[in-house]
Amino acid sequence: MAVSKKKVTLSDVAAVAGVSLSTASKALNGGGRISAATRQRIEETALRLDFRPNGLAQSLALGRSRTVAVLTDRAESTFARPVIIGAATYLGQHEQAVLLYDARLRRRDDMAESIRALNARRIDGVLVVGEGLHHRTRSVSAEFSVPVTYAFTLSDEPDDVMFVPDNRAIGRMAGDHLLALGRRRIAHVTAEADDLAAQLRIEGLRETLSEAGVTLTHEVLHGSWTEAWGRTAAQRMLAENWEIDAVFGGNDHIARGVENVFAAAGVQVPQDVALVGVDNWEGLIINQSERHLTTIDVGLTGMGEAAAAHLLGGEQSPGLHYQPPTLIVGETTG
Amino acid sequence: MAVSKKKVTLSDVAAVAGVSLSTASKALNGGGRISAATRQRIEETALRLDFRPNGLAQSLALGRSRTVAVLTDRAESTFARPVIIGAATYLGQHEQAVLLYDARLRRRDDMAESIRALNARRIDGVLVVGEGLHHRTRSVSAEFSVPVTYAFTLSDEPDDVMFVPDNRAIGRMAGDHLLALGRRRIAHVTAEADDLAAQLRIEGLRETLSEAGVTLTHEVLHGSWTEAWGRTAAQRMLAENWEIDAVFGGNDHIARGVENVFAAAGVQVPQDVALVGVDNWEGLIINQSERHLTTIDVGLTGMGEAAAAHLLGGEQSPGLHYQPPTLIVGETTG
Repeated sequence: MAVSKKKVTLSDVAAVAGVSLSTASKALNGGGRISAATRQRIEETALRLDFRPNGLAQSLALGRSRTVAVLTDRAESTFARPVIIGAATYLGQHEQAVLLYDARLRRRDDMAESIRALNARRIDGVLVVGEGLHHRTRSVSAEFSVPVTYAFTLSDEPDDVMFVPDNRAIGRMAGDHLLALGRRRIAHVTAEADDLAAQLRIEGLRETLSEAGVTLTHEVLHGSWTEAWGRTAAQRMLAENWEIDAVFGGNDHIARGVENVFAAAGVQVPQDVALVGVDNWEGLIINQSERHLTTIDVGLTGMGEAAAAHLLGGEQSPGLHYQPPTLIVGETTG
Repeated sequence: MAVSKKKVTLSDVAAVAGVSLSTASKALNGGGRISAATRQRIEETALRLDFRPNGLAQSLALGRSRTVAVLTDRAESTFARPVIIGAATYLGQHEQAVLLYDARLRRRDDMAESIRALNARRIDGVLVVGEGLHHRTRSVSAEFSVPVTYAFTLSDEPDDVMFVPDNRAIGRMAGDHLLALGRRRIAHVTAEADDLAAQLRIEGLRETLSEAGVTLTHEVLHGSWTEAWGRTAAQRMLAENWEIDAVFGGNDHIARGVENVFAAAGVQVPQDVALVGVDNWEGLIINQSERHLTTIDVGLTGMGEAAAAHLLGGEQSPGLHYQPPTLIVGETTG
């Protein structure tokens, strides 16, 4: 929780020092044409009032490095990449450079070395980018004197600032969409039972179905995030004659595997069975004009932007920040 | 071609101006406590001797900002993203930050505004990242006093430093692989006839087939880079009873469209017809364990790394630098 305390603003400093806001900003920024005496008076006022720039916006005003470190285990991961690009794009728009440290590629191949190296140079903030919620990352916040924000990963310190996908909302969104289409006999095929994202999507799906007085027709089929598993699951549904009118695939690969087997068996999508996936890979890899699968975009790029914006924005809000997903309607529920 | 000419060093400038190396460095760096007169004398000497700091290594030695600008039209493009991540990863390993400017997102929505803004702050080099070779980008090199390198785009100034995919090598690689498998009746389905990448891949393919005494069995089928076009082309091949034992799809989407139609028609891949694509999307989006399509990786990440390494490396080598492709064998030629 943020400490509740009347915050001293730059305006307060300007008023007490008897200068304009613009002059106070320039003085603490280190730029502009201001006499040394005026600058010193403003700096002393800021110190006396305990004026604390508590975020990058103000770090900037104080003339810091305009560089944010992005710390990751694996920059080239399919999932980390859009988060990093989203953050770097936002930061670039706000004149902030990104120093990308891929711990895997560094000398010691560990986070500790990266942290040491980053602390040896000037940075204004740190964005730790993960590639999912599979496990909790060790918090590194205490090892930096600048603000640290986490994106697409959970740290083991609940008061850290974390930006994560809203998997429960993803499950609800899939359910709501299928219900709105009049589908009531819904099956769900997803990854391993101990996968946190899979669990939360199931919870969201069950919640929204339950509110509509609907239950899943069959047990959730657990396997892996792969097209091969989607095919296997679809073969089982066909072999056991599941009477269903919709399948929610835990991700797009699973959905695609299901669809291929259904197509070969003469099950029509969406006429017989509507189909929803998650991840929006088509939007990433195929021309928008070729969009086929109805899917839910987790918002990885937006998550990177939001985390960067929070880091720049001043006040740090501890805890989880959920990135809202987006429904992308394609032909499989058209 | 690099112009062969004795290079003027900072030491030469210092000697001629009659100052220490350190003073010359500070003067040209804009930092340090040097009289205006001395700075002017050193600058004039550098100009007279045609001293060109030709690379970041030297910029670094001159104590610059350790920040490289990445200038792009569209950071979130599927193709630009791996190039940018490759460059940022390499630069981060070498303690260089990246300032990402996405011209599309800036106030004026044009390059000119981005260039003005970049020139207003300290950067050590510029990497212009495009998203293909569809058209030549206007050269911006003359608008910067620091080295400029282009990745995944062609500038309209042949002496610029450009890192691009080797589309001819990609065509050769596909042909060589199919020939090595004993395939001799090869068809090619690709994008529009005026697409430069498509043209070069065709040239490479024809070259290597010709060296083996083989010609394409039929005309090249030109359409678009889409799965839908792959399906249409496959339907035509089936309708016209093409006698072929291999198809080279201009990209993975085309190859996938071809395969789906062949599968539905009972044509077995790879037994009846071997199939090769380009782009390695599966490697990007699907678990490696699920790899299915034989494809050629264009090397976008490596291209970003190579461009960044060149920018850091000192000597600028004007002209085209081709990124070698990589063959990834999957089940469709297995």
